[in-house]
Amino acid sequence: MLKLFYMTATCALASRIALEEAGADYETVLVDFASDAQRKPEYLAVNPKGRVPALATDRGVLTETPAILAFIAQSFPEANLIPADDPFAFAQIQAFNAYLCATVHVAHAHRMRGYRWADDPAAIAEMKRKVPESVGACFEMIERDMLQGPWVMGETYSICDPYLFTLAQWLEGDGVDPARFPKVQAHQRLTAERPAVQRALAAERAAA
Amino acid sequence: MLKLFYMTATCALASRIALEEAGADYETVLVDFASDAQRKPEYLAVNPKGRVPALATDRGVLTETPAILAFIAQSFPEANLIPADDPFAFAQIQAFNAYLCATVHVAHAHRMRGYRWADDPAAIAEMKRKVPESVGACFEMIERDMLQGPWVMGETYSICDPYLFTLAQWLEGDGVDPARFPKVQAHQRLTAERPAVQRALAAERAAA
Repeated sequence: MLKLFYMTATCALASRIALEEAGADYETVLVDFASDAQRKPEYLAVNPKGRVPALATDRGVLTETPAILAFIAQSFPEANLIPADDPFAFAQIQAFNAYLCATVHVAHAHRMRGYRWADDPAAIAEMKRKVPESVGACFEMIERDMLQGPWVMGETYSICDPYLFTLAQWLEGDGVDPARFPKVQAHQRLTAERPAVQRALAAERAAA
Repeated sequence: MLKLFYMTATCALASRIALEEAGADYETVLVDFASDAQRKPEYLAVNPKGRVPALATDRGVLTETPAILAFIAQSFPEANLIPADDPFAFAQIQAFNAYLCATVHVAHAHRMRGYRWADDPAAIAEMKRKVPESVGACFEMIERDMLQGPWVMGETYSICDPYLFTLAQWLEGDGVDPARFPKVQAHQRLTAERPAVQRALAAERAAA
C-alpha cells in the first residue's frame, strides 16, 4: 500500500489531495517537525533529504512533489489528473509544478529556512525581510501569465491545482495580501469546494 | 521546428544535449545575458520569467528544465531517454531532476543571483560565502544516495544524465573540489564521451 510521509501545513498537502482525488488506497505517517523527526535516522532511512513529502511504494520511496504528483496521476489514469498521451500538455503541467517547486516554494523558504543558504543571523533576517516582495512577485506572474482559469490549465483540473492551492495558503504568513491576486483567490475557493480537498484538509486538522 | 532559447554555460546545456541525443530537428537562439537580453520585452514575450532555457514548439513555449527534458524524451521515444510505460521509474527520474532544479541549482544560484532573495550587499555576500558548503552538501548526497552508476539511474542513460553533467560542471566555480565526488567525476567523464554531448559542447563553444 502507498504510504505518504508528511507534516501538517507543508507542501505534502498537495500529494495528499492528489491521492484523495485518485481514490488511492494509502496510509499516512506524520513526520513531526516539532520534535525534529525529519532529521532522525529513522526518517533519513526513508528520505535522506530529511524533508517531506515522501511516498513509499512497493518499488521504493519517491520524493519531490512534482515527481510524486505525476506518479499518482500516471498510476491512476482513470482520475484524469493529467491528459493522456500528450507530451506537450504534460510538459506544461510539469513546467508549472517545477515553477512552484523551484521558485515559489524556494522564495517562501527564505522566511523560515534561511539557514540553508546563510549562517549570519543578520543575513537570515534580511532574507526574511524580502520574502513578501519575492513571493509577491511569483504570484504576480502566476496571476498574469500562468493561471488560465478556472483551473491552472484551463477547463480541466490537474495535478497543478492541489499544488497551487497548497502554496497559495502560505501567502498571508509570508506577508503578502492574497487580495492582490483575484484569479488565485477564485482558484482557492473553487479548489476548497472539492470533496477530495475537504477530506485532505480534515485529515490534516485531525492530525495537527 | 523546435527552437531552444539558451545562454552559454547555463543549465540550458542539458536541454541541448537531450535534443542532440534525441536526434531532434531544432534551432537555437542565444539569449545574451551580457547585454541583459533575458530582461528585454522581446524575450519576455517568449518567457515572462526572463530565464533560460525555453523551448518553442509548434504548440507554444515550454520552460523549466525538468519539463523540457521530459518533453523531449516523450516526444522522441526511440531515443530511450526515459523508460516506456513505467510511472515509478519515470517518477524516480523526475525526482532526481527536481532535486537538481529546486535544491542544487538553487544552492548554486546564491553565488551569482543572491539579489533574488536579499537586497543588502552584506547579506548577498554572506549567501555567496556559504555556497561551497551548501552546494558541496548537495553533491555529497548525490554521490552517496542518488547516483547509481555508471548512469544516474544505473545501467541506462536517461534525461538525468545531461542535467547532472551540466550542473556538476559548476562545482569548481562554486568553490567545491570535484575530487570529493569520485562517482560524479566518473559520470562526468563517461558523459563527456557521448557524441551528442560533444556536439552540444562544440556548439556552445562556437557561440561563446
